[in-house]
Amino acid sequence: MRRALVTGGAGFIGSNLADALLARGVEVVVYDNFSTGRREFVPAQAELVEADVLDRDALTAAMARCDTVFHLQANADVRHGLERPRVDLEQNTIATSNVLEAMRAVGATRIAFSSTGSVYGEPEVFPTPEDAPFPVQTSLYAASKLAGEGLIGAYAHGFGFTGVVFRFVSILGARYTHGHVIDFFRALKADPTRLRVLGDGRQRKSYLYVEDCVRAILTALDAAEPGLEVYNLGTDESIVVNESIGVICGQLGVEPVLEHTGGVRGWAGDSPLIHLDTAKIRALGWEPTVGIRDAVIKTLEWLEAHPKIVQEAR
Amino acid sequence: MRRALVTGGAGFIGSNLADALLARGVEVVVYDNFSTGRREFVPAQAELVEADVLDRDALTAAMARCDTVFHLQANADVRHGLERPRVDLEQNTIATSNVLEAMRAVGATRIAFSSTGSVYGEPEVFPTPEDAPFPVQTSLYAASKLAGEGLIGAYAHGFGFTGVVFRFVSILGARYTHGHVIDFFRALKADPTRLRVLGDGRQRKSYLYVEDCVRAILTALDAAEPGLEVYNLGTDESIVVNESIGVICGQLGVEPVLEHTGGVRGWAGDSPLIHLDTAKIRALGWEPTVGIRDAVIKTLEWLEAHPKIVQEAR
Repeated sequence: MRRALVTGGAGFIGSNLADALLARGVEVVVYDNFSTGRREFVPAQAELVEADVLDRDALTAAMARCDTVFHLQANADVRHGLERPRVDLEQNTIATSNVLEAMRAVGATRIAFSSTGSVYGEPEVFPTPEDAPFPVQTSLYAASKLAGEGLIGAYAHGFGFTGVVFRFVSILGARYTHGHVIDFFRALKADPTRLRVLGDGRQRKSYLYVEDCVRAILTALDAAEPGLEVYNLGTDESIVVNESIGVICGQLGVEPVLEHTGGVRGWAGDSPLIHLDTAKIRALGWEPTVGIRDAVIKTLEWLEAHPKIVQEAR
Repeated sequence: MRRALVTGGAGFIGSNLADALLARGVEVVVYDNFSTGRREFVPAQAELVEADVLDRDALTAAMARCDTVFHLQANADVRHGLERPRVDLEQNTIATSNVLEAMRAVGATRIAFSSTGSVYGEPEVFPTPEDAPFPVQTSLYAASKLAGEGLIGAYAHGFGFTGVVFRFVSILGARYTHGHVIDFFRALKADPTRLRVLGDGRQRKSYLYVEDCVRAILTALDAAEPGLEVYNLGTDESIVVNESIGVICGQLGVEPVLEHTGGVRGWAGDSPLIHLDTAKIRALGWEPTVGIRDAVIKTLEWLEAHPKIVQEAR
């Protein structure tokens, strides 16, 4: 890898990845439209292209001389897919097609893609392996990511691309600006006496620390051959929402009354249980270094230290 | 079912389905852009709307008062996906999103969708059941159909739609105008002394007769409840390409020299073996009435009787 483009490179995972690539001596092009990315996350040594993935010409131009693309840009607003059903299609599926077509145009053939553990829908096997039974999609977000996986598989098979798809659990760590830890953090800062919790709080989730996530992506890409490989990324741990609220409250020193909205799902398409089998990525020698509780605490420490970002995060 | 819209209703399967719906007393709107559909296939009692599925306004207007949509329109040119990679995205994935959004707009909630056995990629389990291990996509066509399945699953889960997805083998019968039986038919009419065969001719395929296919679709939709159901549609038989060529040559009375292009796949993304497990649809009481050999022969008889259509078919 000599020169890489990172879509969403001003975002949470993308900017952490850009840092790691630069530390390896790779030239990095950060491609971001700053819809949720932040300028202070973009490494100084990276080239920055401020444009949208739906702008195919800009994307192709930015990709010149790149051999590898880390396609991390996405609409990550999982919860509100049903309010604007075209957003996931455009920002996730069509965007991925644009990335692949730009790669063909410039001759880049290696792509890493951030998919989601949500593509397993409501699985029956736990921990869920990559070759779990063919799932039914339960959210537009997951459906749009699965569509992206399919496109990459077809390009790998048809055009000899090297594609590596990562099905993530939720990621935590420095520059985390979207998800339930920041939602709870903000709510408790506003009113430490009560906390509204979507669902019954017994949804079981898994989290991975962002530095472990980035290291896993690079480990898998280093090992990749032409064709498609799919890796679950997570830890062997899981935690129920009520437990992670306990960690958050302990860290913040608050004791709110929990007001559960009820139901086994926090929202339509929420998975009551996400717990991925990570044996495949571990077989490459990778293992996580930060557990779920520590990841939550490190994330809270980062949020405490960055009040302006917390205030402005969408 | 009182009033149904059939996308691709002037096509092979769509027009056969429109006939069956009218015979049941259902009002039928045929929606077709005549890119491959034919006016003489549109039943006289159907309302015809000549428009493209990418025209969302026209699609929504045509769907007024419909309770059910049979979404059969597709780019079915499986073999040439790599030459124009956006066609499958637009005609299959974005088109399906448009159909679902039009349904939301008019309040229609029941959809039947023609997917493909190709979504199993190159499976390791035969016959392949609906819950086979999570596959890797090997063609843009299959990837775009899988994306459509995912969208329908998400709408079923999020909006209470009733979605029924059919993973088809190849379909044969009256009004068949696209696929290798017509290709071979045409080639042998032009030169009965030799026949070029893509691959080694040992690809194993399965076929279903169109009337059996239409009956299966209606059987499954009659049984459907809100949510998503996926059914394989095929027969328990399979046949290798060289055998089906034997049936064709026998029927046409020709003895060509076969010129195989070689390789286990006819083209990039061709499946060396498609054989679907149809136990799920059979459990609803459906079973096929026409075997593969008879389906090939009936198709040839229809092609013989319709030289103008054969000549004009794309």
